[in-house]
This record gives sequence, structure tokens and C-alpha cells, in this order.
Amino acid sequence: MQDKLDKAAGIDGKRLWDKLMRLAEIGATGRGGLNRQALTPDDNEAHRVLVTWARALGLSCFIDDIGNLFVRRKGVRDDAPPVMFGSHLDTQPTGGKFDGIYGVLAGFETLQTFEEAGLETERPIELAVWANEEGSRFLPGCMGSACYAEPDKLDEWLAITDIEGTTVKEAVARYQTDLSDVERRPLGGPVAAFIEAHIEQGPILETTGNTVGVVTGIQGARDFRVRVLGEEAHAGTTPRGRRKDALRAAGAIAQALYASMDDADDQVRFTIGEFIVSPNSASVVPGRVDFTIDFRNSDQEILRRLGDQIESICTNHAGPCRVEVKQIRWREPATFSPQVPDLIGQAAERLGLAHMLIPSGASHDAVNLQKICPTGMIFVPCEGGLSHNEAENAKPEDLAAGTRVMAQVVYQLAIA
Amino acid sequence: MQDKLDKAAGIDGKRLWDKLMRLAEIGATGRGGLNRQALTPDDNEAHRVLVTWARALGLSCFIDDIGNLFVRRKGVRDDAPPVMFGSHLDTQPTGGKFDGIYGVLAGFETLQTFEEAGLETERPIELAVWANEEGSRFLPGCMGSACYAEPDKLDEWLAITDIEGTTVKEAVARYQTDLSDVERRPLGGPVAAFIEAHIEQGPILETTGNTVGVVTGIQGARDFRVRVLGEEAHAGTTPRGRRKDALRAAGAIAQALYASMDDADDQVRFTIGEFIVSPNSASVVPGRVDFTIDFRNSDQEILRRLGDQIESICTNHAGPCRVEVKQIRWREPATFSPQVPDLIGQAAERLGLAHMLIPSGASHDAVNLQKICPTGMIFVPCEGGLSHNEAENAKPEDLAAGTRVMAQVVYQLAIA
Repeated sequence: MQDKLDKAAGIDGKRLWDKLMRLAEIGATGRGGLNRQALTPDDNEAHRVLVTWARALGLSCFIDDIGNLFVRRKGVRDDAPPVMFGSHLDTQPTGGKFDGIYGVLAGFETLQTFEEAGLETERPIELAVWANEEGSRFLPGCMGSACYAEPDKLDEWLAITDIEGTTVKEAVARYQTDLSDVERRPLGGPVAAFIEAHIEQGPILETTGNTVGVVTGIQGARDFRVRVLGEEAHAGTTPRGRRKDALRAAGAIAQALYASMDDADDQVRFTIGEFIVSPNSASVVPGRVDFTIDFRNSDQEILRRLGDQIESICTNHAGPCRVEVKQIRWREPATFSPQVPDLIGQAAERLGLAHMLIPSGASHDAVNLQKICPTGMIFVPCEGGLSHNEAENAKPEDLAAGTRVMAQVVYQLAIA
Repeated sequence: MQDKLDKAAGIDGKRLWDKLMRLAEIGATGRGGLNRQALTPDDNEAHRVLVTWARALGLSCFIDDIGNLFVRRKGVRDDAPPVMFGSHLDTQPTGGKFDGIYGVLAGFETLQTFEEAGLETERPIELAVWANEEGSRFLPGCMGSACYAEPDKLDEWLAITDIEGTTVKEAVARYQTDLSDVERRPLGGPVAAFIEAHIEQGPILETTGNTVGVVTGIQGARDFRVRVLGEEAHAGTTPRGRRKDALRAAGAIAQALYASMDDADDQVRFTIGEFIVSPNSASVVPGRVDFTIDFRNSDQEILRRLGDQIESICTNHAGPCRVEVKQIRWREPATFSPQVPDLIGQAAERLGLAHMLIPSGASHDAVNLQKICPTGMIFVPCEGGLSHNEAENAKPEDLAAGTRVMAQVVYQLAIA
């Protein structure tokens, strides 16, 4: 058994790093980062490159109705539910080279290592590349994994549009055309277990000197869209008393919301990330502002209490404007059942890697998979805790260490 | 003489209205307004239509190096400086059917009336269509008239770019190609006098029951660009204490600026009209905000005192972010010399139109022409004072009344 586990952990860190750098060429911004938003031609090309690599190893590829991609290695009992692992290849508009991509390539490296070592498993093992994790083009994110876990909600997701009015349905059709030589399979299906490796996207592992984070769960989130409606008017002639300035109102609302979320122990995560002014012309009093709210916390009661205040704060600070508040999503905090986290901790121990339990501040596709199967996540450090930023960085040795842990856990789960 | 003045005032209000509605088809938004920004294909087409109408009357057309268009009717002393009148055909992104366009078509109606009545003038008379008055695509506005008044600054203006990086030079080259059959003439030249008819864009004429506003001058303006630089970070993981949220800082700056400009007698015009957040993604802490300031007042001392505070207010409210403040323009308040305003008042009196002296809150091309020749403006009411808005509206009878005043003033100036 130890021999098999050693073989599983015999991953090639340089090969992993080289693939990360290769995929960083697709959608590169020229400033070290990536703009490879979900279901764009660049995102589709990244999926295509992965298919090419998989086929070179003789592995089978599949795509589904929401744009997820799977790379499958057969098991002895090939009809048993697979052990699944992976993450996503899409990025933020000014994203980095590691967020999501590391989890996919750690999974690919696991497949390649098992294949080349001739490691047999009872269960099939599958690398999943989940569609639209970031949610920057199509809101909300983690869309591919959400559809996988709840396939009957597919039509709702397909109707969502991006800022230009393109639907998810149209974008997925384009994806399926771009990957028309890849076999289609039905959305969803039983999964034996799911493991996702990821950069931490926060400063804790680096600060504490740990290489591996054994993720205990994922904080909850409430997402809102706010629309402030005023009236366009001439900037040079319209008296203040007659204005309905949507930007002034939105600014007052935003400051009141920030103040309402400023907790003493700095555990609340509250962000207005998207903020669009219309008509956005220097000499016109703005008639409309649309903005998003991303509010997260590990405590469901805090999510309820602070989130429930949002609408009244907006209304109370809208001045002469009208305001519409719409909740897009309320995701409860998730706690992983211990099975997979325990295996992750044991593997880190066995491999001599400094490790700790850690909650995930960010959301991940694992939050959807934990609804349908035992799930765990492996965090590795990233430089300065910086993520969703073109300067995102991680050390090759940490990425390799996380992959070794993952490969052993996959092996243990797949021989069962 | 009275006979000649009657002929000059014999304009056709229905013909004027029909031309307004015809030009409202070019760049129509489908919501009653226009998006015909400067030097776009639609703007060029509007110029083209005017050239077609002018040629049908046997009038000569000319274009220049910044994209101004002139329609000229000969005078007895055809080498004398012309009496000029006009406005602009470009609009805001969500502009109306009258702002600028009325002044151009009032001028065209004057030309047609003189032509059909066989009214001879000593001086040539010229309708001017000034390029890029709105300044929504290329900032600052009133560009064509500014270049006409100061032709030696042409190169500075040609180097200005729009948001996509297109230069004014490139856009003007496209304009000259689109109108390549129109004779080119050098930029600038002596002008005997300039008259501009315009909707008021404010509520005063309507509120006081006047049909004609005799404009006394144009308030001054200071325009700024502000850039707030923070750091992009993950919305779900980055503690508040580590954030450099450019939107939160920009919001605090904006609220402080609004408060600093809230004068008791509501004479200060202060607008943040353009406000752009980067990367503008729901789950990314914003790393940068760029916004404009449009600050106007008739009192040079108020412009100085309140405008000079802007930079320190920005700096003091930037929190953990950096802020850069750049003044784009400082235009002093302008007071028209009495010659043309007096003629406007006399014509309104003679025509039995209720009229009043009024300052202009908005800037107009007249502000540049008054630097080089006697200048005046005629205001007519617009519905609810609303402008820079797709719902902008005016009454046909008011538009005709203003045109009758203009035609008489043009005639009186051109026979001298």
C-alpha cells in the first residue's frame, strides 16, 4: 500500500508548472494576469488545450449541457460512481494564473501520474473543469457545478444574460460548437467523492508558515443587485434642488452600507465590485446607477441579520431617487463532512507537510459538490494572500506539495 | 426697412419643425432621443443631409480642419467678414432632438427665407455647424468653435482621444472622407458677428412665461479628472483591514465633494457625470476608479475658491488609496458685449414676444465666438427645463418665434 501511495505522490512538479504557464498564455493581459471570462473564445480554447493533452494520454473527454468538461480514466469497476476532482479554467477580467487553473492542472497531473505509473483503481477517476466559476461574465458564479448538482435547474441558468445580452444558452452553444468533436453526456450523475485543490486566496497559510490547508467548509454569501433610478439632466443648468442625481444617491447608499458592515473583528466580507453609471457622460447628471453587493460570512445568523438590513438602508439613503434591491443568491455556509478532510490531513501528515485546518473565505465549486457527495478541499499558499489580481502568484514547490496530497487522497478514495 | 424686416421674419415654422424631425431620425435611440456623438458616422450623416438641403437651394458649403461645416449665402460685398449664426448637430449619448440642432436649423430656415424672398445683404451670411460641441466622445466640448477662434491650437485638439483610443485627427479624417465632395477651406477667419439660437435647457423661461431669452453671457466652468488607485483583491477572502478599495474611497471623496459644493442659494452647478470602476466585477474589490468633475458658476471668485479645494478634499478622503486630480479646463465666465443682445431684445419687442434677460447655465459655441466678434444668443423655452435627456421637448411655436428674432437680427447685422 505504501508503495502505491508513493507512486500516486510521484507527481512531476515541473510538468505541472509548465502547463500552468502554457495555459497562462490564453487570454493573457500582457500585465502578468489573465482575462479569460467564462464561455468566451479564450476560455473555450483553454478547454480545447486540455482536451488535446488528455487525448495524448489516451483518456476520454466529455462535455455537458452547461459547458462542463470531464477527463475520465477508467476504473476496474467502471460503472461505479467516479472519484472526481478539479476546479475551473475561467478567470476574472483581471485575474491571475492560478485561481482555478491550479486545481484543474493538479487533477490532470494526478491523472497523468496514475496513467504513467500504471496505477489501477477500482473506481473510475474524473477530472472536472467546471463552467463559469468566477461569475464575472454571467452572474452568479459556480454555475457549472451548481447545474451538475441540480440538473433540473438547467433552464433557469441557461436564461441568464451577460452585460451585452448574450444568454448562457447561446454561449454554451458556441462552446459546444468549438468542442464539437468531444462526446456529449447528460448533465449530472452520481459521484463517489470530490476533491478540489486551490490557492488559498488569503494570507493565513503564508502568515502561519503552513504548506497545506485542510479546508473545513465555505462561508455563506448573499448577493444583491441594486438599481438607483434618478433623472438625466444638464450639468450646467439644472439647479441642485431639481436634480435626481442617481450617482449622488448611489454614493450615499454605498457609504451607509459600508458603515453598516464595519464589524469590530473584521470578519464580515462586504464588497461593491460592479458599479455602472448611465449615461456616464461628463456633462449629464446621471440618471441611473446599477451596482452589485457581495456579502459573505461563515455565520448564517450574521448573514441573515446584516443582509436583511440592506434594502432599508438603500431606501433610506436614496434621496430624491428610486431604488430597487434584488437578492440574486443566498448561499448558506457549508461545512464539509469529515471523511475527505480527514484523508487530506492524513496525507499531509504522511508526506511531512506543515498543515492546518482552515475555513474558505472564497466560494468554490466544492460548495455545490458537497451537497451530493463527500467533499474536501486542499489549499496551498499564495503570495501575500493576493488573488483576483493580475499579480496573483504561488510557489512551484507549494503547488507540487498540494498535488501530492491530492493524488494520494484520490488514490485512497478510488480503490475503495 | 420694416418691409424687409417683415420678409426676414417670414420664416416657415412648419418647415423648420419638419427638418428637426427629419434630423431626429439619424442616431435615434428608439426612446425619443438621439445618440449622435461627435464625428461618428451618424453625426457625419447629419452633416451630409444638411449639405444636400443647402445645395438644393444653390448655397455653397465648406468644411475645415476640425470638422466644422459652413453654408454660405453671398453678400453684395462678398469679401466682407460674414455675419455668422448656427450651433451644432452632435448630441449626448442619451440626448434630445433640439439641443444644438434647433440653432442649426433656425439658421438654415433663415438662409432659405432670405433666399426665397430675394433679400439682398451687404455682407455674406454663413450658417456654422460647429464640430463636437457636446464633448461626450471627445472631451472637452465646444471643440470646433474653439479651434475656429484659436486655429493655432489645432494640433493640441487633434491629439485628443476618445475612450477607445481614436484620436480627433482620425475622426476628422473620416469626416473629411465622408464629405469629400465638400470644398475644404482654412480654419478660422474674421467674423462680423455671431448669433446662436438654442433651447434654454433650464426652467426659467417656462416658469416666467417668456418666449425669448436675451442671453447676457455664459457661466464659467472648471473640469477635472480624478483617478483613485487602490488594489484589486478577492471579495470573499480579503479582510477589510487589508483592503485598498478604490470604490469605497471614491465614494467617500464624492460625498465630501458634494457637501463642499452645497451652497444655500443653489447657484453652484457641480456634477460627477462619468464614473468608471475597474475591473468592475462583482467578486473583486475595485482597484481603480476614474471620474470627472463638471463645476460651473457665473462668479470667477467662486470658481476659484471652491475649485481650488477639490484636490485637497480628494486627498483627505482617499483612505488607504492614492488619488490623482487633474484639471482639464478652466473657462472664465463670459459676458456678451451689448451690441447683439440689444438687437435681439429690440427684435423680440418689435415682434411682440415676451422676453427677458437671462444668463446661460450651459456652455455653448458662442462662448468661443465672443472672443473674436460681437456675439449674442437667443433662448427659447423647453419643456420642464429638461435637456441632455431623451425626453427633451419644445413647442413648434416657440421655436418659430426664436427663429423670427434671429432672422431679423441677422438681416440688420448683414446690411451694415
